[in-house]
Amino acid sequence: MLLSRSWRAVSVLLSEGLSPAWKQTRNHAAAARLDLRGIYPPIATPFTPQEDVDFQKLEENLQKYAKIPFRGLVVQGSNGEYPFLTEEERVEVVKAVRRSLPADKLLMAGSGCESTKATIQLTQKMAAAGADAVLVVTPCFYKGKMNSPALVQHFTKVADNSPVPVVLYSVPANTGLELPLDAVMGLSEHPNILGLKDSGGDITQIGLIVHKTKTQDFQVLAGSAGFLMAAYSVGAVGGVCALANVLGREVCELEHLCVSGRLEEARALQQRLIEPNAAVTRKLGVPALKQAMEWFGFHGGACRSPLQPLTEAETQQLRRDFCSNGWL
Amino acid sequence: MLLSRSWRAVSVLLSEGLSPAWKQTRNHAAAARLDLRGIYPPIATPFTPQEDVDFQKLEENLQKYAKIPFRGLVVQGSNGEYPFLTEEERVEVVKAVRRSLPADKLLMAGSGCESTKATIQLTQKMAAAGADAVLVVTPCFYKGKMNSPALVQHFTKVADNSPVPVVLYSVPANTGLELPLDAVMGLSEHPNILGLKDSGGDITQIGLIVHKTKTQDFQVLAGSAGFLMAAYSVGAVGGVCALANVLGREVCELEHLCVSGRLEEARALQQRLIEPNAAVTRKLGVPALKQAMEWFGFHGGACRSPLQPLTEAETQQLRRDFCSNGWL
Amino acid sequence: MLLSRSWRAVSVLLSEGLSPAWKQTRNHAAAARLDLRGIYPPIATPFTPQEDVDFQKLEENLQKYAKIPFRGLVVQGSNGEYPFLTEEERVEVVKAVRRSLPADKLLMAGSGCESTKATIQLTQKMAAAGADAVLVVTPCFYKGKMNSPALVQHFTKVADNSPVPVVLYSVPANTGLELPLDAVMGLSEHPNILGLKDSGGDITQIGLIVHKTKTQDFQVLAGSAGFLMAAYSVGAVGGVCALANVLGREVCELEHLCVSGRLEEARALQQRLIEPNAAVTRKLGVPALKQAMEWFGFHGGACRSPLQPLTEAETQQLRRDFCSNGWL
Amino acid sequence: MLLSRSWRAVSVLLSEGLSPAWKQTRNHAAAARLDLRGIYPPIATPFTPQEDVDFQKLEENLQKYAKIPFRGLVVQGSNGEYPFLTEEERVEVVKAVRRSLPADKLLMAGSGCESTKATIQLTQKMAAAGADAVLVVTPCFYKGKMNSPALVQHFTKVADNSPVPVVLYSVPANTGLELPLDAVMGLSEHPNILGLKDSGGDITQIGLIVHKTKTQDFQVLAGSAGFLMAAYSVGAVGGVCALANVLGREVCELEHLCVSGRLEEARALQQRLIEPNAAVTRKLGVPALKQAMEWFGFHGGACRSPLQPLTEAETQQLRRDFCSNGWL
Repeated sequence: MLLSRSWRAVSVLLSEGLSPAWKQTRNHAAAARLDLRGIYPPIATPFTPQEDVDFQKLEENLQKYAKIPFRGLVVQGSNGEYPFLTEEERVEVVKAVRRSLPADKLLMAGSGCESTKATIQLTQKMAAAGADAVLVVTPCFYKGKMNSPALVQHFTKVADNSPVPVVLYSVPANTGLELPLDAVMGLSEHPNILGLKDSGGDITQIGLIVHKTKTQDFQVLAGSAGFLMAAYSVGAVGGVCALANVLGREVCELEHLCVSGRLEEARALQQRLIEPNAAVTRKLGVPALKQAMEWFGFHGGACRSPLQPLTEAETQQLRRDFCSNGWL
Repeated sequence: MLLSRSWRAVSVLLSEGLSPAWKQTRNHAAAARLDLRGIYPPIATPFTPQEDVDFQKLEENLQKYAKIPFRGLVVQGSNGEYPFLTEEERVEVVKAVRRSLPADKLLMAGSGCESTKATIQLTQKMAAAGADAVLVVTPCFYKGKMNSPALVQHFTKVADNSPVPVVLYSVPANTGLELPLDAVMGLSEHPNILGLKDSGGDITQIGLIVHKTKTQDFQVLAGSAGFLMAAYSVGAVGGVCALANVLGREVCELEHLCVSGRLEEARALQQRLIEPNAAVTRKLGVPALKQAMEWFGFHGGACRSPLQPLTEAETQQLRRDFCSNGWL
Repeated sequence: MLLSRSWRAVSVLLSEGLSPAWKQTRNHAAAARLDLRGIYPPIATPFTPQEDVDFQKLEENLQKYAKIPFRGLVVQGSNGEYPFLTEEERVEVVKAVRRSLPADKLLMAGSGCESTKATIQLTQKMAAAGADAVLVVTPCFYKGKMNSPALVQHFTKVADNSPVPVVLYSVPANTGLELPLDAVMGLSEHPNILGLKDSGGDITQIGLIVHKTKTQDFQVLAGSAGFLMAAYSVGAVGGVCALANVLGREVCELEHLCVSGRLEEARALQQRLIEPNAAVTRKLGVPALKQAMEWFGFHGGACRSPLQPLTEAETQQLRRDFCSNGWL
Repeated sequence: MLLSRSWRAVSVLLSEGLSPAWKQTRNHAAAARLDLRGIYPPIATPFTPQEDVDFQKLEENLQKYAKIPFRGLVVQGSNGEYPFLTEEERVEVVKAVRRSLPADKLLMAGSGCESTKATIQLTQKMAAAGADAVLVVTPCFYKGKMNSPALVQHFTKVADNSPVPVVLYSVPANTGLELPLDAVMGLSEHPNILGLKDSGGDITQIGLIVHKTKTQDFQVLAGSAGFLMAAYSVGAVGGVCALANVLGREVCELEHLCVSGRLEEARALQQRLIEPNAAVTRKLGVPALKQAMEWFGFHGGACRSPLQPLTEAETQQLRRDFCSNGWL
């Protein structure tokens, strides 16, 4: 199923019901130039023992992150437990981060919901709360119907109605759905869609996305530290890496080695990051990320239920994955 | 990973943080006897052209359903597009159905959310809105962490805090997650958990669940008309069937033939329902269900975005699947 | 992708290169009437400690099976470890079984290979060795290319060149491939294709196959005891059940209860067979089947490498699955 | 499940039944030093119109390949249609290649079978036919039982009894099975196991394998041109690439750019190879590989049945994937 490569054609295709607000009201040429290059931790959300958002601890984490050469922060990504927060909490957390974040750092806020309408509303609230860009995950409950036309329609409507640039977000481990290449190609032509965070990690697909969107200045971010160097090798421009919540300087150092062509050093560092990264993502998830944050001087704490604390055996496995690579 | 079969043991295992409110405050012996036997359509939610809930059309559908020998209705199941509704809309729809529904019919309301806390809150609102029981889907975004202990913890807390009985809901096609047998076995011992709607359709698993929960009066409902007769053969007691929105009398007739042992007639009818059922579920989804409803005298209409209307080719395929089995 | 329903059309479609030998040389009307109804154990292959086929032990098993009211035996099914045998061994085992088997019992021999050519050759050898019918598994190594046209072509050529009737064999757990409905429908019209052994266990699909091949006298066999009763309920005519190697009388009793409409007794027996069946198939595989055979008075013994003996923990789990259902 | 990292421990674990012939009879220190670095086409097998191996055309292809700076050839890989060849044919093809191949090029022969015994026998025949090393695919029919201990046992026995070094081969798209990391780690310590051809393409896993086998001089080869540059970036030493049958010089050029650190040129070339590579592998398979070979001056021709020729639409798609990247 080939999408028209011309944005004009896509517009016609999708014309009914769309109000391309961006055409009159915003300077999208500027938006399109927002430079995403660099490393972003998708920050965790600390909770109090009563499972309320702990803004004090969040603020303390932010002050520590301010000393690390991140390009910015992702707020309300999967590692922020956004599906467990109310809409109000999601917006409040973004506001709190905005107040604390230095002006030269980007705030990318997750604003994806299942319905297009809810996503647009939350996107606009996130922009009002100070987000520089929004990260919009693929809707996924009706995955059997989320083919390219449906996804193109969804993201186009959101981008048309977003006051800030949009970054697409594909995370198959959580959604059971990969954003298809033809949808990415079509969407890359939208002036208010900047790029893609790809957490799927299919490096062939990542290389192909870079190749097929070359004329669009479309920016691809690796969605995990596990394949960061490989993603740079095929043309990605940065990474949104859970592990950067824990080993932020090291992930930034890997970025630096990759972009400056110091490949042997990069390779050695990359290899030492794979197991800790897998431990705090695929293998043991957000509870492990938060546990590891505690070990490295950040506030992690408990997750909201139904996410459970690590068992003793899991904690030991987590420690081993950091120790055996020389991080603990 | 074997769960203790004894509810006492499960209670001890899960004791910390649980407030088994039901122990003091409700008559769960009564709750446990709520008889679920029969057929339930998981009703669709009609929308206006502006994508608002169309309560007028909903009411007209309900009046038609009142003449069909359903055991009750499921409100806010997957076919009700609940992930696209706000919490307020979800509750309002339940209230509207309650006002219309004859007193002898059960109202089972979907109240599942990703977090335990939100699920408990919505469960209590659904009970207040008049639900006789709640249908609670497995949380699924963090599917890698939704193992049996996490799911047992989640459903136990919900059941502990629910004023009405709970029915578990496993729908892997949407959630990417199957509720494991050991979790079902453990949860079947909770006095406020009545049964399971299984939409996975693994008939061996369904038979085993019936077998392993035999002492608990645990009631299994087939989650689709496609395997309804097979599910009866291995011990299910009813069905929540999307197709019953369209061919309600016929699904009830199939139930009747199954429970009265008229197997040849049942088989012939079951076979004619498989393709129409697949068309409005797995193959073409909710938009097809709503289209077919229109053909059979009900209000279907459009879905909320990002669900797209059927293409012309899909509409023809849908029609063929009804025609070739003699329904159109 | 719809296949023509008319055999004439299929023939034209596939005409090049096909030599429909059956048209002139055999009485396929007779072949088509071969009645498959009943239960078949897919017999295990005993080995000596040196991993040679142990024909003596095989013979002793056969004498015990002769006293059980099986319809026949499947030789060289998945449970016979056929992928580990040479072509010569496969044929020799069939010859040995033929010598021993009473004349009124069917011998169905597995003759599937990856290439069409090799499958035809082995099919003809199996017929010469005394097979009444052949069971032909889907080729699967190039699974990405095994779409309906390729599979229809393959099975058509095999059936055209087979001196005995062909039974299709779909076993996704081993092949990673399900024989698609449209291919089954097309192939059901071939006069030398009798039916299908379905080990996938998708009961909706099984019901639909029965429905869509109704005019062809196409016979569906359940490929596992786990869903035997459900398969009967939707129109299957028998079963090829690994568990029948161990609990042969009981599986035949379940058949008897199903076909005579004694549903409550059937259900109770079916439920007690699910766990033992899962243990000797999906969960623990052929080594468990052979271990359980030893417990019930048959020769099982070791598998060929790389299949490993059960660990102690696995043996205990296997025993539990028989004990907790009252079989040990 | 952690395997002992020490080969001694593995030996003890696996001791029964193993005859570590290599300990006495061969100079494995030498074997371990066989340098695999470079590019290998897994050559296709040309057939005559009667589906016999066409040795004449094979020879003509080999003469053309001799002019390309390959490190060697893989004979009887998946692209050689080995599952469709008899054992005799498999050996004859290797002999034919050996006669033609310049002495300084490596001949790696596929010798994997389902059983350990058959694999050992074919391995020895391949060595006798002139193979410098053997490529041994994971057995896969009983995939549910092919856990790490079974696979370690299998490959250890094969390596113990092989006169030439062994390269492991993991190709999940065909086998439905990924060789687990712990098995690779254990096997990397065997003196007669040189490395791994990884066709799965999980770049994080590839990086981790390189990292965890660092002390063993274990050599990882990318199993596809689609992720060749990424694999080099994380430490692979070469590639076995179907596309090298068609664009051999270009794949070798990509290797050259990668190892000499000319990353921008490498990236541009890599990106242009992804679509043609996908077309001749995952998307359209061996028939497409053979069609593309024809376009580029090699003998491709038809596949053995059940592999079907490309449809007209597929041929056009294949052509587009080469044209749009500037290769046709």
